[in-house]
Amino acid sequence: MISRVLAADLPRHVGEQVRIAGWLHRRRELKSVTFLIVRDRSGLAQAVLPAPVPAGEPAPGLPEETVIEVAGTVSANHQAPGGAELTGPLITPLSGPAAPPPFDLYRPSVTASLPTILDHAPTTLRHPVLKAGFEIAAASVAGFRETMDRLGFTEVHTPKIVESATESGANVFGIDYFGRPAYLAQSPQFYKQALVGVFERVFEVGPVFRAEPHDTARHLAQYTSLDAELGFIADHHDVMEILREAVAGMAAEAGARARSGLALLGAIPPAVPRRIPEIHFADAQELIAGHPGRDPRGEPDLSPADERWLGDWALREHGSEFLFVTGYPMVKRPFYTHPDPARPGYSNGFDLLFRGMELVTGGQRLHRHADYLAALAERGEDPRPYAGYLQVFEHGMPPHGGFAIGLERWTARLTGAANVREVTLFPRDLHRLRP
Amino acid sequence: MISRVLAADLPRHVGEQVRIAGWLHRRRELKSVTFLIVRDRSGLAQAVLPAPVPAGEPAPGLPEETVIEVAGTVSANHQAPGGAELTGPLITPLSGPAAPPPFDLYRPSVTASLPTILDHAPTTLRHPVLKAGFEIAAASVAGFRETMDRLGFTEVHTPKIVESATESGANVFGIDYFGRPAYLAQSPQFYKQALVGVFERVFEVGPVFRAEPHDTARHLAQYTSLDAELGFIADHHDVMEILREAVAGMAAEAGARARSGLALLGAIPPAVPRRIPEIHFADAQELIAGHPGRDPRGEPDLSPADERWLGDWALREHGSEFLFVTGYPMVKRPFYTHPDPARPGYSNGFDLLFRGMELVTGGQRLHRHADYLAALAERGEDPRPYAGYLQVFEHGMPPHGGFAIGLERWTARLTGAANVREVTLFPRDLHRLRP
Repeated sequence: MISRVLAADLPRHVGEQVRIAGWLHRRRELKSVTFLIVRDRSGLAQAVLPAPVPAGEPAPGLPEETVIEVAGTVSANHQAPGGAELTGPLITPLSGPAAPPPFDLYRPSVTASLPTILDHAPTTLRHPVLKAGFEIAAASVAGFRETMDRLGFTEVHTPKIVESATESGANVFGIDYFGRPAYLAQSPQFYKQALVGVFERVFEVGPVFRAEPHDTARHLAQYTSLDAELGFIADHHDVMEILREAVAGMAAEAGARARSGLALLGAIPPAVPRRIPEIHFADAQELIAGHPGRDPRGEPDLSPADERWLGDWALREHGSEFLFVTGYPMVKRPFYTHPDPARPGYSNGFDLLFRGMELVTGGQRLHRHADYLAALAERGEDPRPYAGYLQVFEHGMPPHGGFAIGLERWTARLTGAANVREVTLFPRDLHRLRP
Repeated sequence: MISRVLAADLPRHVGEQVRIAGWLHRRRELKSVTFLIVRDRSGLAQAVLPAPVPAGEPAPGLPEETVIEVAGTVSANHQAPGGAELTGPLITPLSGPAAPPPFDLYRPSVTASLPTILDHAPTTLRHPVLKAGFEIAAASVAGFRETMDRLGFTEVHTPKIVESATESGANVFGIDYFGRPAYLAQSPQFYKQALVGVFERVFEVGPVFRAEPHDTARHLAQYTSLDAELGFIADHHDVMEILREAVAGMAAEAGARARSGLALLGAIPPAVPRRIPEIHFADAQELIAGHPGRDPRGEPDLSPADERWLGDWALREHGSEFLFVTGYPMVKRPFYTHPDPARPGYSNGFDLLFRGMELVTGGQRLHRHADYLAALAERGEDPRPYAGYLQVFEHGMPPHGGFAIGLERWTARLTGAANVREVTLFPRDLHRLRP
């Protein structure tokens, strides 16, 4: 049997007999000719049947989404997708005729509602527009990994079942672990810090779980976290430099590998400035207060409206779609956050805003055992549940820090998706547990 | 401040003033001189202090594992690690003196028991011998990804919380999902098959969960699965070809990136033959029965002893550490397994044996909706719990198949670890939920 050619490669085979295979994307019957559009992982290809269709030819009876093989001769035709088409085709169905999908996958735009799309995700994701976000996500992850690899980070895989829910206490999923209570990990925070003691620089791409009681366009019960942690830093600026490299790598690979997906969505990967502009939390509040309409001074955190304002400001003043906000008040950061030695009420923590929304949280962590005990005491917390976490700091830990990028949030921001569920293959939320 | 140099790069800086940073791996006080061995992510470096140590020098009071910075002049010395050492060093501790680890990390071999090693994993993993397995694992994963990428596979991230435990029914972890029962995914089987309908070729590197009631050297409650699935195959041999590429990529990257870790363990990555030898299940049983001592004919599966026998045979007869066994009886394979059209009692499923042990299970899957209904009926199973799974096969699915490689099992086999826990960062099993 002649070997299969991908749709996108058809123009390189003009004049040859080839075989393509894929889904019958669309059948268009005109008076003198019938076009079959075949979709495979590389794109679309066109096969042309004369009208009337020869007796015994199965194609006219096959509904869209039937999987077919088409053998034929490649002919140049500048009106066909890619400039070539298959003529004299011989068609073989590879699986029975397909049931109709919940909406026509061949129409250029998606008209179905989000619940319909999600309920039938295994089928609806085949639509090129819905699929595009995942091509961009996969390319971004590849860019993240390549960057981490280049910078000497070791990839790790840490437990997702944990003994205690130390990081935030709330919003954890309980699990029956051989008759004992356990929890799904909300982040690899403890493990990535501990592994700085082993590998100095680690990263993980994996699921994290949040029992979010909020039914919003931003919250998921499971998402993919791109985590990194590194030792031997001077302060959080060393972490921010690595993060800048990671985001630049993600944008570059999305641009390089997911070109057609980006074009389909009209999305443009951001230019990541060589130096991302940076503003201190307190200065950011002063800046906003200096303009009419709002005065956030005294608030311990930035509101979404503040973030949007700062995003506009960074674009206007620095021509940057990214902005680092540093020095968030200690009261709003986790207990392991390192304070700013010069202004102890502020932290060596940062957020990275992308297009006016928080994309990444990170910072320098405490690294001395005594500092952990003091931080817990100051918050009135019992150190005993943290015994396993604290142990590692008794055995010599360097100054270190890290960050976590939410993959789905990155992809949503990049593609302009209004709801993070549009860029999550099979989302899990307060109400959704299938498919 | 002069920027940090890694231990392994010291020989390239002879005559220069540099700064290194890492853990005080060992302190050796001789009559005329004190050696400090510093460990960083690249390896070991030696600093030399004259004796008596200058007044005010903190080094003599610092226990091993203290994190230090050492500034000094690089001098050639063929007896030092890498052929260079730091002289006239100025030492700065970066965190307080370290508590002693559970055993001396500087001794070449590990004498502690496995429970001790695992109880104190964040510290004990720093031992070069214990760390080596994870360097090999990370390199193998990189090789897997590069190979999948090259072969046109898209990386996906699928739900780890699922509505029903369809694949095996038993050994699942239950979870309270917003008041509803749910389960941790035992594999991405359903999702990777569904996504063949979207991307044709997908892979995932992620955690899978098994509530294994067995306390053995091979079973874990969480492990890392390297999953792949591809469409438009003729039969399982197309899957085996991809698997061969994947394993070759893993072995090659382990050899290239984890050279020193392999040397430390005396481990040699296998040569993966261009064509891995293959034997049918029935022929394998005949072969074993043709030799004295055992007759496995009639058994529906291979025993560990059979696998060892076949591993020896493949090495002896074919010079291969790998052996494909194909055609396992349908009764022992999951219901979605595609039968051998010519011998329907046997499957188009395979195992890949590596050094006499099953490393990978894979095969061709059913792809027609009617075949799924018939397979479930034949096993007396109610199709209703499978409704979500079966839906995708109504909408046109190509012939497809895939495989799953257990990362920890691969690494254990490659390094000769007797227990899979030795190559799992923080193992989870029947008894162990921490650290």
